[in-house]
Amino acid sequence: MDLNLLTATTAARAIASGEITAEDLIRSCLARIDQREPAVRAWASLDPARALSEARERDRSFARRGAVSPLHGIPVGIKDMIDTADLPTQHNSPIYRGHRPGQDAACVAVLRAAGAIILGKTETVEFAAGGRKAPTTNPHDPSRTPGGSSSGSAAAVADFQVPLAFGTQTGGSLIRPASFCGIFALKPSWGLVSREGAKLASLSFDTIGWYARSIADLAAVAELFQIIDAPLAPPPMEKLRIAICPSPVFECAAAETKAALSRGVEILAASGARCETLQLDNRFDGLVDAHETIALGETRAAFLGEYRRAGHLLDDDFKAKVENRAGITPQQLRDAYDLAGECRAAFDRIAAGYDAILTPAAIGEAPIGLASTGDHVFNRIWTLLHVPCVAVPGFQGPNGLPVGLQLVGPRFEDGRVLAVADTVSRVFCEPATRGG
Amino acid sequence: MDLNLLTATTAARAIASGEITAEDLIRSCLARIDQREPAVRAWASLDPARALSEARERDRSFARRGAVSPLHGIPVGIKDMIDTADLPTQHNSPIYRGHRPGQDAACVAVLRAAGAIILGKTETVEFAAGGRKAPTTNPHDPSRTPGGSSSGSAAAVADFQVPLAFGTQTGGSLIRPASFCGIFALKPSWGLVSREGAKLASLSFDTIGWYARSIADLAAVAELFQIIDAPLAPPPMEKLRIAICPSPVFECAAAETKAALSRGVEILAASGARCETLQLDNRFDGLVDAHETIALGETRAAFLGEYRRAGHLLDDDFKAKVENRAGITPQQLRDAYDLAGECRAAFDRIAAGYDAILTPAAIGEAPIGLASTGDHVFNRIWTLLHVPCVAVPGFQGPNGLPVGLQLVGPRFEDGRVLAVADTVSRVFCEPATRGG
Repeated sequence: MDLNLLTATTAARAIASGEITAEDLIRSCLARIDQREPAVRAWASLDPARALSEARERDRSFARRGAVSPLHGIPVGIKDMIDTADLPTQHNSPIYRGHRPGQDAACVAVLRAAGAIILGKTETVEFAAGGRKAPTTNPHDPSRTPGGSSSGSAAAVADFQVPLAFGTQTGGSLIRPASFCGIFALKPSWGLVSREGAKLASLSFDTIGWYARSIADLAAVAELFQIIDAPLAPPPMEKLRIAICPSPVFECAAAETKAALSRGVEILAASGARCETLQLDNRFDGLVDAHETIALGETRAAFLGEYRRAGHLLDDDFKAKVENRAGITPQQLRDAYDLAGECRAAFDRIAAGYDAILTPAAIGEAPIGLASTGDHVFNRIWTLLHVPCVAVPGFQGPNGLPVGLQLVGPRFEDGRVLAVADTVSRVFCEPATRGG
Repeated sequence: MDLNLLTATTAARAIASGEITAEDLIRSCLARIDQREPAVRAWASLDPARALSEARERDRSFARRGAVSPLHGIPVGIKDMIDTADLPTQHNSPIYRGHRPGQDAACVAVLRAAGAIILGKTETVEFAAGGRKAPTTNPHDPSRTPGGSSSGSAAAVADFQVPLAFGTQTGGSLIRPASFCGIFALKPSWGLVSREGAKLASLSFDTIGWYARSIADLAAVAELFQIIDAPLAPPPMEKLRIAICPSPVFECAAAETKAALSRGVEILAASGARCETLQLDNRFDGLVDAHETIALGETRAAFLGEYRRAGHLLDDDFKAKVENRAGITPQQLRDAYDLAGECRAAFDRIAAGYDAILTPAAIGEAPIGLASTGDHVFNRIWTLLHVPCVAVPGFQGPNGLPVGLQLVGPRFEDGRVLAVADTVSRVFCEPATRGG
């Protein structure tokens, strides 16, 4: 069997039992990358020699003391707007060409301390916030985007090049690519994973999360980051009460997303879960605009440094934000923050009545071309609400491309949403396997 | 005249008119530091040769093209938990001994692009969040703390070693030291200054701000950071309507702070301002606890990286937070965030009825010894509310040490609060000059 096909937790068990070595696993992933990189272009930088040398070090340490953590020897891809001490961090920006930060981002430090091997940096939209797109293609169809801004991370995991990859979400940059690529993703509750060392765009929204090919893998990383004490057992389907939330922007959904949601409900109901439609009240209608206002206000401050010291190398997207060309006023900002605060409290009270809420993850299949990474309209509300979001694959569109859904829950109930996602994903179709 | 006594804007005008050179100014500041550093200990690192060489470069560039900005050639101190590319950034932590980040923090990049000269790094409490204290003493009395965590920045500005210094506030780390040292400070509205490259403690509270010896200096930096379009003219005293807010924790105030507030009101009223007492309603009583809960929840994530990779070098303060020894629950976190959101909206509506709100800045005079940097009980509420705070000096305690007050206003009305502080500070006493 090709080891690159293993999930992280399965591979970790194989390493911990001495069945395989970390070096074998890394070699297999590198071979897959070698074969597929010309088409998929997921990686902004790779250092195979260093990764292999670290793998041998992990194997020696295993021989001495056993596996020290559930990620011992497991390769991870890191979105190239998260700092790494030993690989460049370039943000897909000419300002940062060849840039080497002096230290690891907090999340990278946690991964390394757990024995993970940072395989390489994955392609991103410029500063994960606009401007230049990643060159990455969708592993299921090279004529299509994998989504963004965490383009390379989603594609690399979907394409079996690496079992785990980290990304970020400010609008919909984790969950939408997961849907387009047919994989799992966790956007944790806001604030539970330190975003120190990730390029800042929006203080209120930027959230680090990760991609995997199983819920068990998402949960293992969540445990490492103290988001959950331990993975919860998947609750029995017949005990689940699931809210089906078309969300206030359901009219934006393509036919395949509407079909996926209907089919999902049919499957869940047939499996014994109680499904109830949830229509959010009028207050929630303003959240897409509030997300836009806050993001504009906050990115204005975030890119002032680049604007002043290297403005000629900054995409006009960012200049427009720094110059506040949208003309956001203090009163608009206050109103947007206050609506966000009010709806966070209201949503948690609503969500407390269900085991989880099922809602679209993206408009539909991945769009053709790389000029757009797709629309984040089905993600902005949940990012603004600071709630945990789990992308669950399992459906297909008219072109045979993946269509996913997402489960959300109240803030800081990431463990519960992961457990429900575990139950639910077992009855949805298997994640589509890539073409290539 | 000793150039180190000049404020930043006065010095900048003298440079722009060719009266003095940047090199003269830096030499004067360095001479003052040389004389006073053994007693005050404000600096974690200094590189006089580099600062002088940059000053000469600024003078050459001035000869070619004139002064390019209001901070051209002006020296600035930077709290040693904010990254600088050419000076160590050590966070007062053995984990970061000799650490050199590969890049400037966003705020440092903005300062440099404006022609400012980063004179050195100033002493801080460990990670600006607990643990080890700074060795810095109060310039007015070496047996007392200058306050913290921005200890070195406040002391260096108060001691005429540098006209401007940057610090951060998560609880009361900017405004309290300003009160203890008898100088001005601005803690801007949350989110208006990028905190990228400053060590993260609390996502919801960490705010970069600055110290100066005049309101004009605070405003010049605010303009540079696009917080205000241009400094507003100080409004005439007789048009001002000032709310006097003892705050929900007024029982914590020492006699000298109570006296300062009473005397401040007398002076303002005698000068023609309308002063009205503002009692915040019951909801605000919970904000000190909500600040504590959120700060604990967020620092838990913030220091996980250091805990995992170098826990043996981390003060137990931080271990307790990472291990959640306080036992903060998801429900407590949700309640604290929701109360914060509700009170932010409520406070802005209340504050809109006044030109500014006058309230204590600290319990009283700086405490004796360096083991404590004083209590932030009069700062936590305002930090949590995300509002602009301007520290205004002008009063004294029983030991002749400075006692300040602060002016606050609605979120994003920093310019208005600065303008009112300009008017008000003209009738309060002159900032106390240091001993030494």
